[in-house]
Amino acid sequence: MTIKDVAEYSGVSITTISRVLNNHPDVREEVRAKVLKAIEELHYVPNSSARDLSKTQTDTIGVVVRGAGNPFLNSVLRSIETAVRKANYSMVMCQIGSSEDEISEGASLVRSKRLKGLIFLGGRFDYTPEQIATLSVPFVCCTYTNSFGSLNRKAYSSVYIDDYAEAFRSVKTLTNLGHKKIAVLLGTTCDRSISELRFKGYCDALESEGISLDKNLIIEAKSFHIDDAFKAVENFLKKNKDFTAIFSIADAMGIAAIKALYNAGLKVPEDCSLISIDGIEVSKYTIPTLTTFVQPIEKMGRYAVEILLDVLNNNRGNCQLKVETLLREGGTLAKPKNLIFTP
Amino acid sequence: MTIKDVAEYSGVSITTISRVLNNHPDVREEVRAKVLKAIEELHYVPNSSARDLSKTQTDTIGVVVRGAGNPFLNSVLRSIETAVRKANYSMVMCQIGSSEDEISEGASLVRSKRLKGLIFLGGRFDYTPEQIATLSVPFVCCTYTNSFGSLNRKAYSSVYIDDYAEAFRSVKTLTNLGHKKIAVLLGTTCDRSISELRFKGYCDALESEGISLDKNLIIEAKSFHIDDAFKAVENFLKKNKDFTAIFSIADAMGIAAIKALYNAGLKVPEDCSLISIDGIEVSKYTIPTLTTFVQPIEKMGRYAVEILLDVLNNNRGNCQLKVETLLREGGTLAKPKNLIFTP
Repeated sequence: MTIKDVAEYSGVSITTISRVLNNHPDVREEVRAKVLKAIEELHYVPNSSARDLSKTQTDTIGVVVRGAGNPFLNSVLRSIETAVRKANYSMVMCQIGSSEDEISEGASLVRSKRLKGLIFLGGRFDYTPEQIATLSVPFVCCTYTNSFGSLNRKAYSSVYIDDYAEAFRSVKTLTNLGHKKIAVLLGTTCDRSISELRFKGYCDALESEGISLDKNLIIEAKSFHIDDAFKAVENFLKKNKDFTAIFSIADAMGIAAIKALYNAGLKVPEDCSLISIDGIEVSKYTIPTLTTFVQPIEKMGRYAVEILLDVLNNNRGNCQLKVETLLREGGTLAKPKNLIFTP
Repeated sequence: MTIKDVAEYSGVSITTISRVLNNHPDVREEVRAKVLKAIEELHYVPNSSARDLSKTQTDTIGVVVRGAGNPFLNSVLRSIETAVRKANYSMVMCQIGSSEDEISEGASLVRSKRLKGLIFLGGRFDYTPEQIATLSVPFVCCTYTNSFGSLNRKAYSSVYIDDYAEAFRSVKTLTNLGHKKIAVLLGTTCDRSISELRFKGYCDALESEGISLDKNLIIEAKSFHIDDAFKAVENFLKKNKDFTAIFSIADAMGIAAIKALYNAGLKVPEDCSLISIDGIEVSKYTIPTLTTFVQPIEKMGRYAVEILLDVLNNNRGNCQLKVETLLREGGTLAKPKNLIFTP
């Protein structure tokens, strides 16, 4: 079976068939459909290696996901993949643990897969020019930006929320209800990343209300994983019940917190209010529904791809795009009743 | 910057550096580390296109995920990706909706990306030899098998659970507690796929107990998505409360059911028992914890990759591997109290 057979069968010229196979835009839809139908009916498998080799550039984008298993990142990934496919590119993906280095993974993917560009989904906030020098293609930081780094703004793109401001807003939502003893559930307070920025928002929101920071109300989890968050809250509750609300920096951690509170005999929101940031799907189905600042998940993935393609096609330079969250009111907020328990 | 500079800087021969760049196994760890250090310090970016072009085969596996956004498949995907990376392959991924055709997507990926093999993560159970004729590489069906199809067993590999038997077992767990009015939450009863097989298990388990099928207790959701499952149970509860238990064919649907029951004033398990199949992470954190038959998620992804690599390396022929679930006892089961409500 050769391309000649397809030409004969479909009555379309070899040149046009070749154009269809190479996703050339200059083919009428009607003709394209005819060719694809013939290919399907004949079970024709084009000699793609030869075709690929003849191209000077491939149409592949790499995505490095850092923090595998995070449901928020999974949803963004889905949006990225949809946008990549819509643009007729394909996507090579690799996932790394949160202790691994996305830059070297990305550089190695670029080397081995002849990528046109990279999207880092989750990653460090503190790249230096030296570190990104190994990347020979444009890249977009998706869900974060270079807050702690020293990159020139022309050297990278990003799509992100203002972690500090969103955390500030979350905690203000709690203080506006009258809460003063507010715990925070996070990774570590100084990870030069999401936890640190959202922790700073928490601290400053408290300070703006004249509430001084109580170190006993910081719940540090070993990771952002739901299991680690659960263990952290469980341990915290053994020592401390002198609080009326929790600000959880992520939905998955908030879901774990509701469960740990429930196991300890504390009801949300009667005994403890809870607010978080993310807006993952399943957080609509907790009991009660999680009140959370929803990130524009679909947009973040799509924008990351669109910016990258614009940069690749020289339609624009690099840019940093800040997006906003939207409060989804669930059932996890109430005015503080009393102190739950004073030892 | 050329490979010669790296050679001079590191004191390692060009041939050896080239071996390191091509992941050749025949290099001492110490030397490999030295070369990688030099590459990093010099910010050397090898001319990978040239290298890739000189290879006759790429080291890429394609994964087509059908039913994007399904948290169970996301977890399996993570395991697949880990195994692919460990084997020094890379992974091209695309996600399709549950109404799209994974075979044609896969065939097109193979064509455009010169793939060595394919993993279908979720897919149709009824392939015919004609349909798979467009696939020029070996493939593994992951999380399902050719139950409704006509493939020769030598033509494909699969890693799957026995949907029928696991559903039978789930429903028996409920009847053993004394439940007789058991609703089933699924997609459709005749999708020639998971829903149909698990529905058959449900029917036969009831029959084995002398319980006749009550069509009013079949809750059909528009899709497996948590939102659709929630709406389906919500509507169901408006018409029917004459049941004491629900068998949900998937965890995500079960999570939605707990919420819909709660909203309708029904407690799990006091008013309604619930059991499901999957074992996704978040189902540990529902209130109460979901009782579910846990699929060996990590293994299923890993086995799919290992089988595919074995087939690719001619170490074995195609095979169909059935794996077993394990009951995780949560808090969603109780003996039936009374009929909740008889109209």
